[in-house]
Amino acid sequence: MPDPVRIGLLGHGTVGGAFATLLAERAGAVEAATGRRPQLAGTLTRSEGDFSEILGRSELIVELIGGTDPARAYVLDALRAGRSVVTANKQLLAQHGEELFGVAREAGAQLRFEAAAAGVIPIVRTVQESFGAIEIDKVFGIVNGTTNFILTEMAATGAAYGDVLARAQELGYAEADPTEDVNGADAAAKMAILARLAFHTPVTLDQVPYEGIEQVKPDDLAYAKELGLSLKLLGVAERRAGGISVRVFPCFLYGGHPLAPVGGPFNAVMVEAPAITEVTMSGPGAGGVETAAAVLGDVVSILAGEVPVHEARERLPLVTDLSSSFYLHLEVADEPGVLAKIARVLGENEISVKSVVQRGIGDDARLVMVVHECLESRFSGALEEIAALEELRSAPRAIRVIEEEFL
Amino acid sequence: MPDPVRIGLLGHGTVGGAFATLLAERAGAVEAATGRRPQLAGTLTRSEGDFSEILGRSELIVELIGGTDPARAYVLDALRAGRSVVTANKQLLAQHGEELFGVAREAGAQLRFEAAAAGVIPIVRTVQESFGAIEIDKVFGIVNGTTNFILTEMAATGAAYGDVLARAQELGYAEADPTEDVNGADAAAKMAILARLAFHTPVTLDQVPYEGIEQVKPDDLAYAKELGLSLKLLGVAERRAGGISVRVFPCFLYGGHPLAPVGGPFNAVMVEAPAITEVTMSGPGAGGVETAAAVLGDVVSILAGEVPVHEARERLPLVTDLSSSFYLHLEVADEPGVLAKIARVLGENEISVKSVVQRGIGDDARLVMVVHECLESRFSGALEEIAALEELRSAPRAIRVIEEEFL
Repeated sequence: MPDPVRIGLLGHGTVGGAFATLLAERAGAVEAATGRRPQLAGTLTRSEGDFSEILGRSELIVELIGGTDPARAYVLDALRAGRSVVTANKQLLAQHGEELFGVAREAGAQLRFEAAAAGVIPIVRTVQESFGAIEIDKVFGIVNGTTNFILTEMAATGAAYGDVLARAQELGYAEADPTEDVNGADAAAKMAILARLAFHTPVTLDQVPYEGIEQVKPDDLAYAKELGLSLKLLGVAERRAGGISVRVFPCFLYGGHPLAPVGGPFNAVMVEAPAITEVTMSGPGAGGVETAAAVLGDVVSILAGEVPVHEARERLPLVTDLSSSFYLHLEVADEPGVLAKIARVLGENEISVKSVVQRGIGDDARLVMVVHECLESRFSGALEEIAALEELRSAPRAIRVIEEEFL
Repeated sequence: MPDPVRIGLLGHGTVGGAFATLLAERAGAVEAATGRRPQLAGTLTRSEGDFSEILGRSELIVELIGGTDPARAYVLDALRAGRSVVTANKQLLAQHGEELFGVAREAGAQLRFEAAAAGVIPIVRTVQESFGAIEIDKVFGIVNGTTNFILTEMAATGAAYGDVLARAQELGYAEADPTEDVNGADAAAKMAILARLAFHTPVTLDQVPYEGIEQVKPDDLAYAKELGLSLKLLGVAERRAGGISVRVFPCFLYGGHPLAPVGGPFNAVMVEAPAITEVTMSGPGAGGVETAAAVLGDVVSILAGEVPVHEARERLPLVTDLSSSFYLHLEVADEPGVLAKIARVLGENEISVKSVVQRGIGDDARLVMVVHECLESRFSGALEEIAALEELRSAPRAIRVIEEEFL
């Protein structure tokens, strides 16, 4: 059995704490997926721990301090010492990416940063590997959850920007000082990182013009709704006129656009390229646990090395009799009492009706209903009883329904 | 400079041909991304080529024959010979996955198969690496583009299943023999693969019950629309009652469900887990070029090895004056001639109006419009002229609009 992988953790705030907890909980799963068990070798906080000593004891460094100083010095030292590094630090990557990539290349160490771009959405891995050899035209989307929450709430309630911001702070979707989120700077850093990966050209934060959402008025959203538009803070990186353009700005989208339905604190990123048409990925934009999960994914990639381990480590039974909700379509004689008979069969089988549409067509009628979730074996039994009713004009038709209603 | 990587290509049908073309076109990009230039060492077709000879000359094998025989024997031979293999073969993985994974592990070779699960959507990589150490509850979605195209068309046009299928065949979205697609078997194979990866337990095609869409009637779709439902062929793999359930069936979704707006020949997959809430990924489900792009992504992953190469190989200029469409909000005096004045300014700047909403409020009026795409510098000039008009009651507000309307 190989030795455990000793991981040095820099930073123990919201994300750092969530990562330490997740790593402990999932150590067995990491070992199963990669062949090596992770173990925290030390944690550097503002008041405790010594970086050099932690580095000396660690094989891999996870940097979750944030900001450029002292994070930059620590990451450079770790890479120069041949340690692979995982970071969620978008400011560091957007301002000092080339320097870090260069040092990592020289040292033969890995530098991974999935959590720095779009929360838990695996956009870095996708652009670097899946789409690493095709010509990408455009990467764009919603890369800040705070502003998307605020814009979604403003559109839904008609409330003013300031009021919704206060509510976002109460709910933990906006920080006490929300400046970097609402003015577009956070999104600009993420777009600098994504543009660099997509177009293989140096892009730094100071080259990305950005506008925020502080000036958006409720009546802009109200008028826009009349025009069929919804507002998003978009980051856009695209090829234009022999060069590239990378910007962040509030932007209206028509209803059918794939990003239009992305609401609340979610992020979504689209990649366009001739070889793939377009791929869209969406998921939670932030949150300590979600960011920690993205960091853990990078740790898995580093430990797995070249060979993803495919061993089946579970022997789970396949369950077949499940609960489902159903759509039920019945062609019946248009006579009094038919609905009552059918309702009785359903009731006797403890199946409750969610919604019904009934319509007469000559001597016949169509009875279309959605029933709430019930065990499928029970529903099949009820269906047989219904099929045997003399009023049925043809075999009943049943199709499953996912009852969950979003938003 | 390292030697080129010699790639043996098995199969030269739609996908095989597209892959050979894409590999030749993007050889330079692969080299830039991985440090090694790929080169086709030989192609095995039905009538030409000898497998053993191609294997002997190749460092990496790409299997695009499809079906289990002779593909299984070729892939096993290649892995045993220590060659890494990329395949798009869902039947092979869904029926013989454990055998192949076992041989790959023993030989220390990689077996990658992104294109076998959900077209160009990077779901395999995401489940194996990004979410490789978290506890996944559910993987589900639309994993067959042919059936999604047919259901989308039936709902939009009211046409019968057979007529829409014929149209799908004309457009190349359905094969001459569409059986495996429309009866759910294709989706079942993909769900067996995804369930295996998500739950680390052996799952084979014969354990996945499936239903297709052949029995769906236009009036089911019409009634369902009244109930706010749209129909999808879903593959669902989830933890249930201490085991797992893996199935394929047509299913209605309510309008707000993230999968509801996925139309046409697109695929979309959702992953649910406590640590990530939910992540949704969508993209084209099939097509020769798209599948070839997914295969090429796997080749990049194998050649890149442990260290993603981050070198900036381009020096692209950052373009700043772009064309955009704009929303324009003006508070103006409610007097005759105001709209004419504003329209003249826009016209003189060659900016054309797409839509307008005008409304009187006391002595004032709101004029809200969307203008078609124009150079931003030109729009800014027009905006200054408009702001200087004496009828303006406050500063004009402008927000960009993406004009593109989908669906």
